[in-house]
Amino acid sequence: MHEQVRDYKVTQEPYYRAVGDEVDLYEAAYAVRMPMMLKGPTGCGKTRFVEYMAWKLGKPLITVACNEDMTASDLVGRYLLDANGTRWQDGPLTLAARHGAICYLDEVVEARQDTVVVIHPLTDNRRVLPLEKKGELVEAHKDFQLVISYNPGYQSLMKDLKQSTKQRFGALDFGYPEADVEKEIVSHETGVSNDVAGKLVGVAERARNLKGHGLDEGISTRMLVHAGSLIAREVDPLAACRMALVRPLTDDPDMRDALDAAVTTFF
Amino acid sequence: MHEQVRDYKVTQEPYYRAVGDEVDLYEAAYAVRMPMMLKGPTGCGKTRFVEYMAWKLGKPLITVACNEDMTASDLVGRYLLDANGTRWQDGPLTLAARHGAICYLDEVVEARQDTVVVIHPLTDNRRVLPLEKKGELVEAHKDFQLVISYNPGYQSLMKDLKQSTKQRFGALDFGYPEADVEKEIVSHETGVSNDVAGKLVGVAERARNLKGHGLDEGISTRMLVHAGSLIAREVDPLAACRMALVRPLTDDPDMRDALDAAVTTFF
Amino acid sequence: MHEQVRDYKVTQEPYYRAVGDEVDLYEAAYAVRMPMMLKGPTGCGKTRFVEYMAWKLGKPLITVACNEDMTASDLVGRYLLDANGTRWQDGPLTLAARHGAICYLDEVVEARQDTVVVIHPLTDNRRVLPLEKKGELVEAHKDFQLVISYNPGYQSLMKDLKQSTKQRFGALDFGYPEADVEKEIVSHETGVSNDVAGKLVGVAERARNLKGHGLDEGISTRMLVHAGSLIAREVDPLAACRMALVRPLTDDPDMRDALDAAVTTFF
Amino acid sequence: MHEQVRDYKVTQEPYYRAVGDEVDLYEAAYAVRMPMMLKGPTGCGKTRFVEYMAWKLGKPLITVACNEDMTASDLVGRYLLDANGTRWQDGPLTLAARHGAICYLDEVVEARQDTVVVIHPLTDNRRVLPLEKKGELVEAHKDFQLVISYNPGYQSLMKDLKQSTKQRFGALDFGYPEADVEKEIVSHETGVSNDVAGKLVGVAERARNLKGHGLDEGISTRMLVHAGSLIAREVDPLAACRMALVRPLTDDPDMRDALDAAVTTFF
Amino acid sequence: MHEQVRDYKVTQEPYYRAVGDEVDLYEAAYAVRMPMMLKGPTGCGKTRFVEYMAWKLGKPLITVACNEDMTASDLVGRYLLDANGTRWQDGPLTLAARHGAICYLDEVVEARQDTVVVIHPLTDNRRVLPLEKKGELVEAHKDFQLVISYNPGYQSLMKDLKQSTKQRFGALDFGYPEADVEKEIVSHETGVSNDVAGKLVGVAERARNLKGHGLDEGISTRMLVHAGSLIAREVDPLAACRMALVRPLTDDPDMRDALDAAVTTFF
Amino acid sequence: MHEQVRDYKVTQEPYYRAVGDEVDLYEAAYAVRMPMMLKGPTGCGKTRFVEYMAWKLGKPLITVACNEDMTASDLVGRYLLDANGTRWQDGPLTLAARHGAICYLDEVVEARQDTVVVIHPLTDNRRVLPLEKKGELVEAHKDFQLVISYNPGYQSLMKDLKQSTKQRFGALDFGYPEADVEKEIVSHETGVSNDVAGKLVGVAERARNLKGHGLDEGISTRMLVHAGSLIAREVDPLAACRMALVRPLTDDPDMRDALDAAVTTFF
Repeated sequence: MHEQVRDYKVTQEPYYRAVGDEVDLYEAAYAVRMPMMLKGPTGCGKTRFVEYMAWKLGKPLITVACNEDMTASDLVGRYLLDANGTRWQDGPLTLAARHGAICYLDEVVEARQDTVVVIHPLTDNRRVLPLEKKGELVEAHKDFQLVISYNPGYQSLMKDLKQSTKQRFGALDFGYPEADVEKEIVSHETGVSNDVAGKLVGVAERARNLKGHGLDEGISTRMLVHAGSLIAREVDPLAACRMALVRPLTDDPDMRDALDAAVTTFF
Repeated sequence: MHEQVRDYKVTQEPYYRAVGDEVDLYEAAYAVRMPMMLKGPTGCGKTRFVEYMAWKLGKPLITVACNEDMTASDLVGRYLLDANGTRWQDGPLTLAARHGAICYLDEVVEARQDTVVVIHPLTDNRRVLPLEKKGELVEAHKDFQLVISYNPGYQSLMKDLKQSTKQRFGALDFGYPEADVEKEIVSHETGVSNDVAGKLVGVAERARNLKGHGLDEGISTRMLVHAGSLIAREVDPLAACRMALVRPLTDDPDMRDALDAAVTTFF
Repeated sequence: MHEQVRDYKVTQEPYYRAVGDEVDLYEAAYAVRMPMMLKGPTGCGKTRFVEYMAWKLGKPLITVACNEDMTASDLVGRYLLDANGTRWQDGPLTLAARHGAICYLDEVVEARQDTVVVIHPLTDNRRVLPLEKKGELVEAHKDFQLVISYNPGYQSLMKDLKQSTKQRFGALDFGYPEADVEKEIVSHETGVSNDVAGKLVGVAERARNLKGHGLDEGISTRMLVHAGSLIAREVDPLAACRMALVRPLTDDPDMRDALDAAVTTFF
Repeated sequence: MHEQVRDYKVTQEPYYRAVGDEVDLYEAAYAVRMPMMLKGPTGCGKTRFVEYMAWKLGKPLITVACNEDMTASDLVGRYLLDANGTRWQDGPLTLAARHGAICYLDEVVEARQDTVVVIHPLTDNRRVLPLEKKGELVEAHKDFQLVISYNPGYQSLMKDLKQSTKQRFGALDFGYPEADVEKEIVSHETGVSNDVAGKLVGVAERARNLKGHGLDEGISTRMLVHAGSLIAREVDPLAACRMALVRPLTDDPDMRDALDAAVTTFF
Repeated sequence: MHEQVRDYKVTQEPYYRAVGDEVDLYEAAYAVRMPMMLKGPTGCGKTRFVEYMAWKLGKPLITVACNEDMTASDLVGRYLLDANGTRWQDGPLTLAARHGAICYLDEVVEARQDTVVVIHPLTDNRRVLPLEKKGELVEAHKDFQLVISYNPGYQSLMKDLKQSTKQRFGALDFGYPEADVEKEIVSHETGVSNDVAGKLVGVAERARNLKGHGLDEGISTRMLVHAGSLIAREVDPLAACRMALVRPLTDDPDMRDALDAAVTTFF
Repeated sequence: MHEQVRDYKVTQEPYYRAVGDEVDLYEAAYAVRMPMMLKGPTGCGKTRFVEYMAWKLGKPLITVACNEDMTASDLVGRYLLDANGTRWQDGPLTLAARHGAICYLDEVVEARQDTVVVIHPLTDNRRVLPLEKKGELVEAHKDFQLVISYNPGYQSLMKDLKQSTKQRFGALDFGYPEADVEKEIVSHETGVSNDVAGKLVGVAERARNLKGHGLDEGISTRMLVHAGSLIAREVDPLAACRMALVRPLTDDPDMRDALDAAVTTFF
């Protein structure tokens, strides 16, 4: 592994609980270096999955949280001013392409389309990255793969990937894990008993049914881990759920009452 | 404590009058380094609370007043031009993450979403901050915690946190203190008698009932402290209340009359 | 007084004719360093008042005319490029906070909210100014006070101060002076006779009644001083009033006729 | 006269044909250094008038054509990068204020309000110009005067001067000159006979009656001079009028026919 | 001719086929240095005409293709950073004004109004160009003339020249040439026979009748030259017309059928 | 071939399966250096075609993926800061024009119109590229040709090429290849049997019929190659089609069911 990307190696196995054939499919996709798109709601484990796959494949992982003011230069690189004039510095995408890392663009719809478009030549059979400002044409390293995530429920009419971008990717769907799997995750990550973990998952299921009926999103697995970790530190479960599940989710008094009631049912 | 953040230590105990179990809950959240979101109206004591907690936990506190033109670089850092080329300077968020301070982003909905998104990798289990421009991946110091504040009544449709941001935080609600507590605060902070403080709180309660009926916000505890401190300097109470409570709040002649009348009732 | 702000000392007593208890109230506010907001229509003497108070209190006064493209850096300071790299230069707000001047932000609603928000930490009990780009936390000098002005009739829905800003200030209302006072001012400032000054004030009163009925603003005291100074140079009073009072105010032919008629009534 | 503004002296008497008492009124206004606003349609002689007055008063004249992307720095000055770091360069407004020129801001409504607002401290009794970026407070030279022009028929709802700006100026109205005067001007400037000049003025009068009935503006004196100068070079009058009066004014076929017919009537 | 503009001399006579008295009128306009505006649809020969006139008059020609992000600096010039600090570089407009070239601003309505406004002082009797950033007032060389082009059918409500700009120019109308002239042009430029050229012109006439009835623009002379040059290389005329005349013009299937049918009629 | 563009030579024959006379027509267009526009849906082979033609003609190919934040400088070049001041660096368009490459602007409607307009002088008989910032006029190398691509179904009212741009190009239409040709392509590119390739093409044809009835775009040849390459690695065909054809294309549950059913029909 090239020293420039060695820091990005995932050295410890991330805890990931597979819910279907996603691990095998991803391995096949990586084998042909197919660019991948991970779809699913916030906090359901997309980022964890790509960390797990990078660990399993033994490849470095460079993650970029996308945002609407990220310029193409933030991905590709730029000239820095130096004592001896200007010096080129590779951006995270160039670093990954040049030295063979998996590059993960998290929440890619947040980025402006012009930023997204720089990935096109890396995602067709050319597998090159033109550094127009430097006048260099980087041929992607054989280990390089591009992965993007996006939340289909979140995108608005104004923010969506173009078809000419989407069609460059294979896609995997992610959702909240099934009750038993999620219970196992919460218990494993926080140390609470199976019983408490099950109650938390029960609350989450109630809340997820309210999605679209007053809630924009359901309670994510991540939030359950938050609540569990407070309970594990002997915070009163009602207070823990209010603080970690209900208050962050909504400011609507009726929804809060409904969620608080759901919490009381279980604890 | 690292010398770079030593200046940010809160050396004197800030005056804070707890109104519930918020101190204990915050301590539990800090123990698991859960990112925290403080919700409540303007001037009700959110900033004071986080200062108090930083003092109680003995951790430095770096406060950033967010605004809509704050760039990610303002939080994370930037290269400065130097006699020998460029020199990197950590921004407040990087400083806090690197050396173990509590970083408090005040009125975070004011910031652009792209600026907000840079906190994501610090608020999940990775606890890292990628400095993309520097090509460095800062692992958060074990003492680092992120705290944000926001005013639920204030946010518009255009300005709200994304669910994928909200779900990363535990949340505590704040409101105006109850009458007795507020009286104690006003008296303690300004030196006016309990009787005068009580009258000021009485005026505030009248005004708060008008919120949504012609007033955008009620009179805050901070405004009562303003009025009290004028009265303590022997300004006529009617003039002090007009100047510190009524005139700043509204330009509507009818609302002014109603508020002036409320003042006259008490003084 | 620190040499950096000595140039900003008001050395001559500005002519100011008090119209109520505003001088005493301001002195009490300054005694507790309460941030002050001066409200009133254009040209009614707000700027003159703050100059007078700075002179009376013997403090330097740094005035900033706000505008919608003023950045936070314009207030706080910036790095300048130097032969030896970069050099920090305090902006007017930092200069005032560091060395103890009164900082007067004129027409503050003109500024963008992000610029306004930098004054927050200077206007609560912290009295600090974080220079985020420099990594310095300026503690305000004991003499520092912040004063802002704004014209309530002028602000639109798009441009208003946020409640969380307003509530940090005590407020004083200003209006056009009463006839006798204004006559005295016009005569004192231009050298015209009391009789001529009275006629000019009479014209202004007619015009002020038309505010909201075809005129956006009335004739200000400043405009009367303009007209008076022309008459004092023996310009024909009708021509002077047309040029200094009527033509600048409106391009509407009917309003011009009405105002010209008012002028003819008096001269 | 200071050498920095000597180049801006108007050395030759510009041809200006007074139409009323505007020369005397301007002289009185200059005597008290009242800021002046020249109102009127495009091409009616406002710029020529201010050149004439600068010549008559023997003061240098610095003209700035305003536009909506002109920044405050374009008026006030900026730091330039130099071999030895940065060097300040006065903008045209600073140059005029510092060394005593008349500064003429042409079509001031074109400029952004934030640019306009920098002239405020120069237009009240302070007569200062704060160079915030330089930390200098320029006291205006005793000879300095500010003059602005604007076209009342042109301004839209989006682009108008604020009342707090307008009220700082005395105002003079300009219109197209009366027929005899305009004939004299056209003949003097182009060398055509009085007869030809009269015919051109006749065409212009017809066109001006169409303003608001299909034409946005009438034919200006400047356009008549254009047509006249072609005729003086023996271009056929019909072709000259088409090219200099009709084609530039409108692309509407009906209006063109009407105007061409008017031309044929006279030639 | 000054060496700085010698490269811009038009050394070979451009092929231009006059359609009226436009050459004589332009010469008269140049004789009095009247700024000129060339109006007409795309591809009808405006650019060719100004090249021809520059050649005929023996003056260098500097052409600028205007666009909506062209800044005033792109026209006027800017400071470049150099080993010894900053160095001024004249923009194309300054180059032309200083050394006496014809400056041709192609499609001037594309430029922002603030960019357009910099030409004002060059287009009235002053004939100067203030370089505000450099503090220099360039007096236009006696040979300098300004020419602009614009397409009246193209401009939208949002993009039009201001009257105060239009009135500074004499105007010449351009259209597609008459059939015989156009046939001669196509044959001369491509080498096809008169017969083939005539058929191409016939197709164009059909298409031009559809302008406004489903087509935004007609087929230009330039497109006929494209088609002719393919036919001259023995491409099948039907394929050549499809590729050079029909496919670039429209994506509407019905319009394509109509145009293809017109082609078949002739070939 | 000049060394500056030697890297851009296409050294291996790209696999391209001609579907009509497009190769001959392109050769004729190149012979007269006619600028070319390639129209067609995403993923149908436009980029592959221009690579093939560059290989066939033995010319270097410089490809630029256009985006809405690409500035004219990104195409034309810019000054870089160097130890000895500034140094000019040609952009990709200048490189191609100067040294004789084919310059391919992919998805040109994405670029801002001001960026597009810089190609105008290269696409008429002048064949020059003015480097306004450098003050240089580059005459295009005799081998230079400009090619642009665009997707007619994709452009919105806001984003289209101007007629004055379109008319500078010859145009070739591209579509999805016919079933037999596409089967051959999929089989050749992935190694799957003719039978499997035929089934994939069958799925694609079903999906393409849904374009405009719930799908924005059909399944492209590129997506079929993705699916085929997974099947060739022994991924279950149903899972491969879901991942490579259906999931990337749509998030609509009904459309997904319809497409999944189509897949099941064939496999």
